[in-house]
Amino acid sequence: MNAASGDPTAEAEIRALIEDWADAMRNQDVERVMAHYAPDSVTFDLAPPLVSTGATASGLAAWFATWRKRIGYEIRDLSITVGGDTAFCRSLNRLSGTTVDGETSAIWFRRTVCFRRIGDVWKIAHEHESVPFYMDGSYRAAVDLTP
Amino acid sequence: MNAASGDPTAEAEIRALIEDWADAMRNQDVERVMAHYAPDSVTFDLAPPLVSTGATASGLAAWFATWRKRIGYEIRDLSITVGGDTAFCRSLNRLSGTTVDGETSAIWFRRTVCFRRIGDVWKIAHEHESVPFYMDGSYRAAVDLTP
Repeated sequence: MNAASGDPTAEAEIRALIEDWADAMRNQDVERVMAHYAPDSVTFDLAPPLVSTGATASGLAAWFATWRKRIGYEIRDLSITVGGDTAFCRSLNRLSGTTVDGETSAIWFRRTVCFRRIGDVWKIAHEHESVPFYMDGSYRAAVDLTP
Repeated sequence: MNAASGDPTAEAEIRALIEDWADAMRNQDVERVMAHYAPDSVTFDLAPPLVSTGATASGLAAWFATWRKRIGYEIRDLSITVGGDTAFCRSLNRLSGTTVDGETSAIWFRRTVCFRRIGDVWKIAHEHESVPFYMDGSYRAAVDLTP
């Protein structure tokens, strides 16, 4: 199947995956988030290091533990491209919440996700999340931008 | 053609595209860089804004004009996945050079590129370049990391 010019079924599957993933993030459900990753997935994350290989439940659980329930997760301008057994999508995402220390936080960032279909199921093979940074010599991360 | 499990020809075509793109960057060849983008490509760039639609020759020319000849561009750990008429790749890239003001600069960053095959030719449909940022309250962009 060559579906680069549009595969409504596959696109709906990817959209459902993204929505389930986001809902699992909101509910800090480690197992449900992790279920969407290929075992050899590679992440370019908001935080260092440059690259993380193989998403781990323990890392995600530790991060969730820094937040009160529940996390806000909004996805805007989601664009999905499917071609055969690979796909990619991009969106602007907003993460918000209150840390266990009582600090409220909200940030808009960019997310690119690349998928492989393994058997009949789409899995996240690679994801890239970031904010840009100000090139005014301050090297400040641009955590204050909005779409 | 369904080539998610490996399409050596397509993979070689993508690799050649990436190499030609990088060579054009090193030589500040605006036309040759721009030739690799789909007209409706969407970029998540190192610098703000969050999202840029449609790469423009004038923007690239203005950026090239801030550098002396030539720019250093190294690509490491390039991984390419092809499936039918879409593909994606990721790598760790190092940009280095001397600005027209005489300042030397070098930075390692992450790059994800997503492609569509349009006719017989692969084009960049989406690219995402970034560094992570330090979550220690400083919100400093992590421009000092190395692979």
